[in-house]
Amino acid sequence: MLVNGKQEDTIAIMNRGFQYGDGLFETIEILANQPIFLEQHLQRLNKDSQRLYLPKIDLDLLHSEIKQLCENAGDAVLKIILTRGTGGRGYRQPDEIQPTRILSLHPFPHYPKTYYSDGIVARVCKTRLGLNPDLAGMKHLNRLEQVMARAEWNDDTIQEGIMLDINKRVIEGTMTNLFYVKKGTLFTASLTLCGITGIIRSWIFQQLPVIEHDFFIDDLRDADEIFVCNSVIGIWNVRELNGVHYYSENGITQKLQLALESEKQKQVVYAIK
Amino acid sequence: MLVNGKQEDTIAIMNRGFQYGDGLFETIEILANQPIFLEQHLQRLNKDSQRLYLPKIDLDLLHSEIKQLCENAGDAVLKIILTRGTGGRGYRQPDEIQPTRILSLHPFPHYPKTYYSDGIVARVCKTRLGLNPDLAGMKHLNRLEQVMARAEWNDDTIQEGIMLDINKRVIEGTMTNLFYVKKGTLFTASLTLCGITGIIRSWIFQQLPVIEHDFFIDDLRDADEIFVCNSVIGIWNVRELNGVHYYSENGITQKLQLALESEKQKQVVYAIK
Repeated sequence: MLVNGKQEDTIAIMNRGFQYGDGLFETIEILANQPIFLEQHLQRLNKDSQRLYLPKIDLDLLHSEIKQLCENAGDAVLKIILTRGTGGRGYRQPDEIQPTRILSLHPFPHYPKTYYSDGIVARVCKTRLGLNPDLAGMKHLNRLEQVMARAEWNDDTIQEGIMLDINKRVIEGTMTNLFYVKKGTLFTASLTLCGITGIIRSWIFQQLPVIEHDFFIDDLRDADEIFVCNSVIGIWNVRELNGVHYYSENGITQKLQLALESEKQKQVVYAIK
Repeated sequence: MLVNGKQEDTIAIMNRGFQYGDGLFETIEILANQPIFLEQHLQRLNKDSQRLYLPKIDLDLLHSEIKQLCENAGDAVLKIILTRGTGGRGYRQPDEIQPTRILSLHPFPHYPKTYYSDGIVARVCKTRLGLNPDLAGMKHLNRLEQVMARAEWNDDTIQEGIMLDINKRVIEGTMTNLFYVKKGTLFTASLTLCGITGIIRSWIFQQLPVIEHDFFIDDLRDADEIFVCNSVIGIWNVRELNGVHYYSENGITQKLQLALESEKQKQVVYAIK
């Protein structure tokens, strides 16, 4: 782990990331030592840090630290945390902000291959996502809703929980974005009031037309395909939700899976060249 | 500072309090070495830790650590943080949770006496409170909304910012609960969808009948009195909000201020006996 460039595995208790969740994070797949979608992750971090009024990020420095950490990482997960640094007690931020930048490498979670090939079982969570346009979309450190939702089940045959907002609109998974296909059209939730705008979600928007709209669990009942995605798992077909089975050979999910694999390979090959 | 009973001023980066804001806190006034409203604070911590499915708190241990820390503290602020401990990457909590318990002493913030005697100037914040009944009321570590609201002003003539929810209902201050008086009746916001149920707020409910209801900034225009409260400042009259001046000699605010001072003195004297 690197904390502001130094090898450390602790931070000050008075760090505002700990005191208030005053910061952001990114979770990046490392494939054959190469961080995948790195520019997109750093762009989001940069954009969200502006929304939180954090000082300008030194992207060159961040790049060089990532390079250093990933040199021999193989396949792994890189987590970047950026906080408003240390400060006294109280919500008011210090006049001079010295942000804290934490890079940590984690083992790549080797999920069973069937999750990718056959799909997963999902459930609907009771814990709801609160609504707040000021914070919506950002991958910030206030993640109690996801923690509470993930604590709802321990059954290892269920791989993801679908979260609704307090008005029962379907928004996303606890750790993923959610899409569904009906009659050849791709739909997902608009994330203006809650949710996290994932990097894979944004990549999918560049591949195919997507309709962002409000929808409910009942709207998923007669969907042709449902899938979830994030930067570590890629894209997983949801083969079962609420007792309904979904499968579509050569469907949009599978096409996107293949395109995503190809995109990742391209990034690895390009980096090695 | 005491981290699980040991003198430390750092915590592990992998602590879930830092990774996700997965925890709670309490802010307690220490007056002449005595923690004020200690039982009420610990009861709230205990109740909220059950809502977050945290392991049962060892209250005897917590009591003895607080006693140790406050022995020579004089007038100070004690902050207690309780988190779900350390865990791997991912929202899922570990099978065995070893919570982290942090006690820290801070200097008592000596605000100008006029804040107490004459009142303060407040403003209305742009940052809104999101709605989520699952988390409402708790003093949890997800506090980005308060941080963003407090970052809206730097003008030291303004002492508190009033926060509305996303439906424009008045809820509370960035660091306080808010009450108002109209024709002899005391009102405050219901905190079932957002907000923190403060200890002084609960104490006020025991002193006088309070009507919890939905209200808007316009409803404050013809209020007779407005005040804000928390465990450190006690009760401050709001003498100016949105250009409107409020003052009421021998009003409900002043009566509650005197009753609160008397209650605190009683607790100090009782503890010394």
